[in-house]
Amino acid sequence: MRLLEERIRQEARVAPGDVLQLSGFLNHQIDVDLLDKMADEWVRLYAAEPVDKVLTIESSGIAMACLVALKLGVPMLFAKKSKSTNISDDVYSADVRSYTHGSSNTVVVDRSLLLPGERVLIIDDFLAMGEALRGLISLTEQAGATVAGIGIAVEKAFQPGGADLRQKGYRIESLARIASMSVDDGVSFFQ
Amino acid sequence: MRLLEERIRQEARVAPGDVLQLSGFLNHQIDVDLLDKMADEWVRLYAAEPVDKVLTIESSGIAMACLVALKLGVPMLFAKKSKSTNISDDVYSADVRSYTHGSSNTVVVDRSLLLPGERVLIIDDFLAMGEALRGLISLTEQAGATVAGIGIAVEKAFQPGGADLRQKGYRIESLARIASMSVDDGVSFFQ
Repeated sequence: MRLLEERIRQEARVAPGDVLQLSGFLNHQIDVDLLDKMADEWVRLYAAEPVDKVLTIESSGIAMACLVALKLGVPMLFAKKSKSTNISDDVYSADVRSYTHGSSNTVVVDRSLLLPGERVLIIDDFLAMGEALRGLISLTEQAGATVAGIGIAVEKAFQPGGADLRQKGYRIESLARIASMSVDDGVSFFQ
Repeated sequence: MRLLEERIRQEARVAPGDVLQLSGFLNHQIDVDLLDKMADEWVRLYAAEPVDKVLTIESSGIAMACLVALKLGVPMLFAKKSKSTNISDDVYSADVRSYTHGSSNTVVVDRSLLLPGERVLIIDDFLAMGEALRGLISLTEQAGATVAGIGIAVEKAFQPGGADLRQKGYRIESLARIASMSVDDGVSFFQ
């Protein structure tokens, strides 16, 4: 998606350790007009797929998943990173390692909110090693629901997560696919 | 807002310790159509206030803040609960105690994203003791920005946060104001 690629080219800062800072428009401050156009694009790409629910993971995926769900007229569900007191004990859970934060989290969804037979569109901001995505796929399949598709804003396509999950048969639509990035040379994209 | 109150009456579960579980439509699974109508209501209530930015705190405020920002045509910014590697070191910070999670967090925003003179509309899901809200107000005022208004989905009006902050001069528009709640009798509202 050219609009997103251009914005990344203009504003992204690359930090050591392949950290891509998009905090001006994607995962801290959010350009909601850009996100709205990204949501339109995922809706267009998955127009042929029936979808019952949009699933994401807190926090950066929530805004984009919300806009997609609004356009599709279905609920949005976000996996929570730790068990808090305001959801029930009856949860599906998956372990997710975050390379960005250097930590590991258990992510959960309430069992009553993800149902057998539901067709789930998974939306998230980043795909690199694929850890968060594997967690969301696991939650979906534990529930007996089906992954209808996966929409990613920015895929670090030089890391193995996307290739591995596509090989397993999941359809992943990434709006910007980064071929390489470095502190000195910035970001380049696959077309 | 009658629509939100009815939904709370129908679906909320009250757990011991004044915990209100709205995970079916507000803070785990999200009814985006309801949130869209809530966003319309905040926009209507603050129609006379110029707003440059919508500010919230991760995670449950993000979806509603996103829809408000989209309708106002301004960016949305969410305060982060811990310093991660993908935002800069140059942040405003505030300490926020969460009674729900029984923990304390430092919340931060990147200094480059909240600017002197900006008029900020703060949106959040809950107001009880007012801790999260005080944190967001502090971040705004540290930046030399102004709180244009505050929009809350559900105020536990029997707790002192709202009254205290209104007395300090902040305008708070809560779409549902809970007068009392209990495990046995459920929830009742101020009109």
